[in-house]
Amino acid sequence: MTNPTACLLIIGNEVLSGRTKDANLQFLGTRLGELGIPLREVRVIPDVPDVIVDTVNAVRARFTYVFTTGGIGPTHDDITAECIARAFGVPWEQHPEAMALMAADYARRDPPVEFNAARQRMATMPRGATLIANPVSVAPGFIIGNVHVMAGVPRIMQGMFEQLAPTLKGGTPVQMRAVHAHGLLEGRIAEELGQIQKRFPAVEIGSYPYYREAGGGVALVAKGTDVAALEAAVAEIAAFVAGLGFEPVSGEPK
Amino acid sequence: MTNPTACLLIIGNEVLSGRTKDANLQFLGTRLGELGIPLREVRVIPDVPDVIVDTVNAVRARFTYVFTTGGIGPTHDDITAECIARAFGVPWEQHPEAMALMAADYARRDPPVEFNAARQRMATMPRGATLIANPVSVAPGFIIGNVHVMAGVPRIMQGMFEQLAPTLKGGTPVQMRAVHAHGLLEGRIAEELGQIQKRFPAVEIGSYPYYREAGGGVALVAKGTDVAALEAAVAEIAAFVAGLGFEPVSGEPK
Repeated sequence: MTNPTACLLIIGNEVLSGRTKDANLQFLGTRLGELGIPLREVRVIPDVPDVIVDTVNAVRARFTYVFTTGGIGPTHDDITAECIARAFGVPWEQHPEAMALMAADYARRDPPVEFNAARQRMATMPRGATLIANPVSVAPGFIIGNVHVMAGVPRIMQGMFEQLAPTLKGGTPVQMRAVHAHGLLEGRIAEELGQIQKRFPAVEIGSYPYYREAGGGVALVAKGTDVAALEAAVAEIAAFVAGLGFEPVSGEPK
Repeated sequence: MTNPTACLLIIGNEVLSGRTKDANLQFLGTRLGELGIPLREVRVIPDVPDVIVDTVNAVRARFTYVFTTGGIGPTHDDITAECIARAFGVPWEQHPEAMALMAADYARRDPPVEFNAARQRMATMPRGATLIANPVSVAPGFIIGNVHVMAGVPRIMQGMFEQLAPTLKGGTPVQMRAVHAHGLLEGRIAEELGQIQKRFPAVEIGSYPYYREAGGGVALVAKGTDVAALEAAVAEIAAFVAGLGFEPVSGEPK
């Protein structure tokens, strides 16, 4: 059985311009791997309606799950929800449950916050959407079809994702094993490493040089859903590294 | 005159799995903006040949410049160069100039490093490629058509990019001005901010809430190539924020 797949759309000019350093890719890549829904593609796109609509439609046809981050706040540049309504060809309208949740929250604050038109936009969603609870700041995300729309602020996005996680139909968790060797150059091991990769087609072996103040080396990372194959591959890699006179250390370099 | 556009392809399973935190997007987004070649899209894709070939062909037709990072080392998972040769329909073959550079470098080291088959792969490129010098570790990147192929290791990528930068035909630099206001909620200013955006169509105004130990607020960022319009827009934003009784502070929140 093959695993479901995921695609992440990071929506926002501020990431493309370099103003904001994205912190959501790494979190979601890790968490989705653990759930057996490996992240297979990420696109970072600007706050341009046609680009958002076309991209959502292109990727929702190709991946089991699509996740989006960003563009669901109250300001003019928050256009994700209306673009996703357009992508699905459904009206963009006030969501009664989101309206009720947010009205109650704003009324409860001291002093109460006005639930003005701009804030009501955050409760305006594609018709048919179901909500993703926001345990941090109330204004919810939503799901329509296989598209899961979340906030861009990392703490809020993570809160939403953990609400969502138990509802996703995951696959076999992707596991990772690593060894590293100080002082070893990638170019020296490339040939044999390629041979090991060929003997373990179900394992994805990656080779990553690293550079530290105390000197560099190479990290060799095996990933896959078949734990026995994973451990056999890493054992072969470690034996090969040791045979060259380097110490294979379990795990990633610190 | 409209500016040229850029797309970045980040190639590598290690970024999608969450193992490696990408550090190239923010650097390139910033530098390309300064050169007047705004980054309009980023895709993070896996080490899968068909995906790389199809993605390169899709984006090189749509953007003025394409930059890639990752997948040009000596190991079996470094497949960027051969995939780009396939995308352009040209042979993937040893590049005489790259071979000569690398052979000389390896011979010069103490002790000399063997220029073995795996290392020679790093000098194997699409026919017709021109080199991008690598001031850090010699093995060069390359250019074919509008596609610029660079290393994934940030220090090496940055070294390559700075070699490349003076050769790129840039446009009008994208400038940024920001004000922020502590304690101000986005939802309170959204309506009027949208009006200001409408009055300055050539300026891209973004609103970004921030959260700090010392309390949150909102950063209001104006971007564009028309500096006079930019400064007029920011002055209006600052006056509006001050009118609400908040102090508009120049620049981004610390």
